[in-house]
Amino acid sequence: MKTTEDKLVAPLASWSDGAAKQSILAFVKRVTTEGSPDFVPVSDRIAVFDNDGTLWTESPLPVQLVFIVDRVHALASQHPEWKEKQPFKAVLENDLKTAAAAGMAGLIDLAMATHAGTTTEEFEQIVKEWIARARHPRFQRGYNELSYQPMLEVLAYLRAHEFKTFIVSGGGIEFMRTFSQASYGIPPEQVVGSSIVTKYEVRDGKPVLVRQAKVNFYDDKEDKPVGINTFIGRRPIAAFGNSDGDFAMIEWVTGGAGARLGLIVHHDDATREFAYDRAAGLAKLARGLDEGPARGWTLVSMKKDWNRIFAFENHTLVSVEEPDRAK
Amino acid sequence: MKTTEDKLVAPLASWSDGAAKQSILAFVKRVTTEGSPDFVPVSDRIAVFDNDGTLWTESPLPVQLVFIVDRVHALASQHPEWKEKQPFKAVLENDLKTAAAAGMAGLIDLAMATHAGTTTEEFEQIVKEWIARARHPRFQRGYNELSYQPMLEVLAYLRAHEFKTFIVSGGGIEFMRTFSQASYGIPPEQVVGSSIVTKYEVRDGKPVLVRQAKVNFYDDKEDKPVGINTFIGRRPIAAFGNSDGDFAMIEWVTGGAGARLGLIVHHDDATREFAYDRAAGLAKLARGLDEGPARGWTLVSMKKDWNRIFAFENHTLVSVEEPDRAK
Repeated sequence: MKTTEDKLVAPLASWSDGAAKQSILAFVKRVTTEGSPDFVPVSDRIAVFDNDGTLWTESPLPVQLVFIVDRVHALASQHPEWKEKQPFKAVLENDLKTAAAAGMAGLIDLAMATHAGTTTEEFEQIVKEWIARARHPRFQRGYNELSYQPMLEVLAYLRAHEFKTFIVSGGGIEFMRTFSQASYGIPPEQVVGSSIVTKYEVRDGKPVLVRQAKVNFYDDKEDKPVGINTFIGRRPIAAFGNSDGDFAMIEWVTGGAGARLGLIVHHDDATREFAYDRAAGLAKLARGLDEGPARGWTLVSMKKDWNRIFAFENHTLVSVEEPDRAK
Repeated sequence: MKTTEDKLVAPLASWSDGAAKQSILAFVKRVTTEGSPDFVPVSDRIAVFDNDGTLWTESPLPVQLVFIVDRVHALASQHPEWKEKQPFKAVLENDLKTAAAAGMAGLIDLAMATHAGTTTEEFEQIVKEWIARARHPRFQRGYNELSYQPMLEVLAYLRAHEFKTFIVSGGGIEFMRTFSQASYGIPPEQVVGSSIVTKYEVRDGKPVLVRQAKVNFYDDKEDKPVGINTFIGRRPIAAFGNSDGDFAMIEWVTGGAGARLGLIVHHDDATREFAYDRAAGLAKLARGLDEGPARGWTLVSMKKDWNRIFAFENHTLVSVEEPDRAK
């Protein structure tokens, strides 16, 4: 079923003509054309998207890391001990290189100190207020403007073809849920992410959930398929990522029977956004570059395949043709 | 928005006229009437349902316990040590009283032995094959026929009013997902339940998730609000349960601002189903009976409020009037 809107708007307008765009259009046509051997019923049309670097920019720092840094500064007066304690000391001195040297353990310390201790509703409020004010250092815009326009078009195109779209990210689930609906049209219950333990309490007759300083689930790498299975309960048929943290997720999704779409966004446009891959730490993309194409995954060059990256760019439509709608 | 179907079918036909039925109709009217001070936008119309004893029968044993017992028998030849090991020995001797004496630790041993060691897809197949054959000892029907007709009507009525309906149960999430769509019209991604740890592996190039003999999350009592928050990410506005295992869930849901519906099904009909409450072990209902009504929760007498319990009963419609549709 095509919606009226879908017929009127050129699909994937910010995608340049080429193999990447065609792979998306061809996949959607195969799985939604009744009578096609690859037809997939609506109930199984599930697509999963990594968030940082796939749906919005993650450079020079993932947005949630910027939040952590800002919260360490905001909370410092309540924690005089942080002046002498790493990695807090380094963060307060804006020495992120030293802070990063504390590795994953240091990152978890920082995350717990800035994400726990509040109720879930207080935390939601803190994130919403922060994100309304925060500005990206290069683009000088709010993070809600730094969603990738071509990916918003993919989300809309899939939903117009009755896909259910989910985020599956290493980012904090409650962090992302504060903006997933507004930024991507994805409701909170379709966000899968990392979480900390919460505890139910009744305070003065009012029930609350209190966020504990303990990791519950880290939704990255081989645990992305685990998160998908736990939250969604069936294998999606399309997966979109940008780093080797998404490798297992794309492998799991494309490992099922029937038509599948695996897609990797390659950050190769330093002029309009950022260029990074093999040496990028948390956002490293090496195995995906080496093995993805042979596995039939679509490799997207931001430079060549996206004629527009952000909605705020001056823009001339390059690609406006309708796809073949023949049944 | 009312669907055509909703206009043609008398809502909640298996509910007798009375306070319980009226509380459901009045709540739905309050939250869906535009301009009403209690109007709730579609995105926040979330309702959560316990499963065992709320959506289908849980007596004389919860269905998943019957599955466990059957699986212990089926797997016994591969485990000669079970003949001497409790609680397996008692289960194999059909001495469920002795098996129950092993308490929660014994139950977990039984659950792990019968739920782990397979891939997720193998487990799904095992449950589907079992449930297709299993028959309830009293009703001599498949469990798919033992859903409560009045609750199926509540699910349909809420969905006709653009609610999203979720299961939130202490039962196994992957066990329930095998039948939630067929039995209740609830898709796998809207099932919240207890889970065991799964591990991602690539076997001969084929990615699988392997079920580990380790509890991941037990979705009961004070952890039901935790499960709701983890999976759904916002506070539902309606909650349906039947035991004190649902107390915190109903407390959490009805503790939010605006119109809320909390409802407890009381099993008081030994003639048509089963009668049990304060002394019922896993399914004990005491605090809910004592405190529910004063908290404004609806207490449903299966005997008085339901004119039909199962779809297979001979049945004469008692209540067919249309609710007031005035805006």
